[in-house]
Amino acid sequence: MQSGSSSETEKLTAIDDLSGMCLGLGQLARRASLELQDLSTAVKNRWLLACAKALRESTSEILAANALDVARAPEYGLTDAAIDRLIINEKRLEAICCSLESLAALPDPVGEILSGSTRPNGLQIQKVRVPIGVILFIYESRPNVTVDAAAIAIKSGNAIILRGGKEAFNSSQAFVGVMNRVAQQMGIPEGALQLVPTVDRSAVGELLKLSEWIDLVIPRGGESLVRRVVQEASMPVLKHYDGNCHVYVDRLADLDKALAIVVNAKTQRMGVCNAAESLIVHRDVAESFLPKLHQAMIPFGIEFRGDDLTKRILPDAVQATEEDWGREYLGPILSVRIVESLDQAIEHINRYGSRHTDAIVTNDIASARRFTVRVDSAAVMVNASTRFNDGGELGLGAEIGISTDKLHARGPCGLTELTTTKYIVFGDGQVREG
Amino acid sequence: MQSGSSSETEKLTAIDDLSGMCLGLGQLARRASLELQDLSTAVKNRWLLACAKALRESTSEILAANALDVARAPEYGLTDAAIDRLIINEKRLEAICCSLESLAALPDPVGEILSGSTRPNGLQIQKVRVPIGVILFIYESRPNVTVDAAAIAIKSGNAIILRGGKEAFNSSQAFVGVMNRVAQQMGIPEGALQLVPTVDRSAVGELLKLSEWIDLVIPRGGESLVRRVVQEASMPVLKHYDGNCHVYVDRLADLDKALAIVVNAKTQRMGVCNAAESLIVHRDVAESFLPKLHQAMIPFGIEFRGDDLTKRILPDAVQATEEDWGREYLGPILSVRIVESLDQAIEHINRYGSRHTDAIVTNDIASARRFTVRVDSAAVMVNASTRFNDGGELGLGAEIGISTDKLHARGPCGLTELTTTKYIVFGDGQVREG
Repeated sequence: MQSGSSSETEKLTAIDDLSGMCLGLGQLARRASLELQDLSTAVKNRWLLACAKALRESTSEILAANALDVARAPEYGLTDAAIDRLIINEKRLEAICCSLESLAALPDPVGEILSGSTRPNGLQIQKVRVPIGVILFIYESRPNVTVDAAAIAIKSGNAIILRGGKEAFNSSQAFVGVMNRVAQQMGIPEGALQLVPTVDRSAVGELLKLSEWIDLVIPRGGESLVRRVVQEASMPVLKHYDGNCHVYVDRLADLDKALAIVVNAKTQRMGVCNAAESLIVHRDVAESFLPKLHQAMIPFGIEFRGDDLTKRILPDAVQATEEDWGREYLGPILSVRIVESLDQAIEHINRYGSRHTDAIVTNDIASARRFTVRVDSAAVMVNASTRFNDGGELGLGAEIGISTDKLHARGPCGLTELTTTKYIVFGDGQVREG
Repeated sequence: MQSGSSSETEKLTAIDDLSGMCLGLGQLARRASLELQDLSTAVKNRWLLACAKALRESTSEILAANALDVARAPEYGLTDAAIDRLIINEKRLEAICCSLESLAALPDPVGEILSGSTRPNGLQIQKVRVPIGVILFIYESRPNVTVDAAAIAIKSGNAIILRGGKEAFNSSQAFVGVMNRVAQQMGIPEGALQLVPTVDRSAVGELLKLSEWIDLVIPRGGESLVRRVVQEASMPVLKHYDGNCHVYVDRLADLDKALAIVVNAKTQRMGVCNAAESLIVHRDVAESFLPKLHQAMIPFGIEFRGDDLTKRILPDAVQATEEDWGREYLGPILSVRIVESLDQAIEHINRYGSRHTDAIVTNDIASARRFTVRVDSAAVMVNASTRFNDGGELGLGAEIGISTDKLHARGPCGLTELTTTKYIVFGDGQVREG
């Protein structure tokens, strides 16, 4: 429980029967998911468009709720940058509404027939894309994520239970309130979209027990949140822990391109999972490349942590420890390793990386091929910044998170990744003989 | 450890450093998997065909090893039926070799480009099918499963660690020995196929800790084995627990077809996961259907366990308890429930079923549609026996198991289900702007 909360939050945290409340969320979501499986694309899209309209009309309501969160932010110890990310203004709200409209324009994955055949005995087999069912989404991010996640889940035919950060509780509540008012009018089943009505942390533990009612949990936030969820969840988890992303500058790299790519991958946005944390340079180009890079990084205040050879080339580099190779700094530090060969680079990445996003800069087609096949990551880039591993940049449209798991979905998770398949078999009385 | 084992098995169970041995298996498999990712389809297929040839040539070696297992079967308390399933004779070995040849003829899923695009900035995006990596397969089944699993895993580019039942240890060892001799000649990397070299049960626990080296575990066997694996595994698990499969005979069913389907689904092979365990009948047809079914089941000695109404129609039916609705009998018992409506049948199945395979018999297209959309199972059949949920029958070719999970793969798991995807992005120096 939070101390010093406003009466509104206090009321919401004071739930006597927390496990009963959570069970209720799960059961209602399961009932809704049954109806959602059969909801037409037209109804879902009308709901998305009506939500955009209603949110625009509710600007003052949303902004007032958000102001409550922002006012309490210092209590929660939020940094100025974090407070900035928490703020919703008219421009940001408009962006949220536009993203709903974009989502309405995306194809509905539900009902897609992935494959099919007619068997020799006349059975007709269809492998059909269907919603997963009930999704629990636990996140620490900006308030717009509340709207995005709700919209993606329902467009893909799933019921969703949202558990956002306490810092954005009032904002999330306002968003969900508007979207559910519209849902009622548009024939979206009750319980399709639910926000956990308390900031009490133990609600998460209760929800993670409900594998009978919740099919999938997606945690999105810091590594400790994700590890807690993986530890406690009784249902499957779609997640990534961290993003220790590498750029490898090959012996046959175009060094101008390499410079632009490394600078972009490291500095364009430092706090995100697809930012580069580690640079690997082939020995043959290290002496010409590293000083130029060092120079280019000065305006960004990047600290270099290198191996012995790097330190000889860049005297002010800090000595990298074994631990540095595995670190996701999420800030102005870059680890630097010099290698003798492409295979040594691949081995380093597979050993220390996060299986998230890794890039090679090279003009050599054989090296590019070997790197893309052998680096065991969700996304592998050739001559491009790691920052492109993102649903929008890869052309998927909206995403609810990025997976570094190998099972089910790998990379950005959009509408399709929130579906599963079902075999539907049509017969005419067939029985099995052999 | 087994008591009273032969010297051969004793030697193999007496491993001093069990956890070190298991780690070694995992590390060698991971190294092999790196090479396997890049192995051409031609090499993999040549290996499969050469294995078929070599196994035929090793008939006496295989049969001798199998004879050791069969001789010890009574020690392990195997029933006559189980001993029969354990036996390999020339005919069964020939069937195993033919299945290797069929697998060679199937398309290789690795390298398939599932989708792709060129983005406005010129980036070329490919979503490519790649092997999962290292698979641990734990099974209790007949010795032919050893060969099938090894072949499916390697054809889909994965390294596999096999942990078969102790009852078939010598047979499995002989199979793996031959397949690895061929592997060495054909350029399959060392460690692609490994059999856990001990029947010590604690090896399973050690292997399930190795999430760094093993990407996926597939348990196949009784529910208690599967539950143990799910409980202990640190890596994802692909599995089904049980198969409480239903046939629903609708108000508008063709009762002759219904009779044939229920008899087939229940009796064609009673000990398998896609056999029917539960019958649901619409009230309007119960009085005409159930006596005929009862009559048809007499030769198979099926016990009916029904609700009150069933007992009124079939006086010798046993009263079903709440527990019966959830049971997978795997034997000559059928639970019977009479319902007032299609929706009541759907609700019953979603509540008590295993999400495995459920069938409706109906001539009504609206009921068929509602049933297939709302029954939340891996496979849903219309006017066909539940026994058709099988890789071969659905046209997938070989399968390594059936999944009732919703994540990753649902239904029979063949070559494709042992793959994941990877985004490969080709650029020309692109960096991210926004």
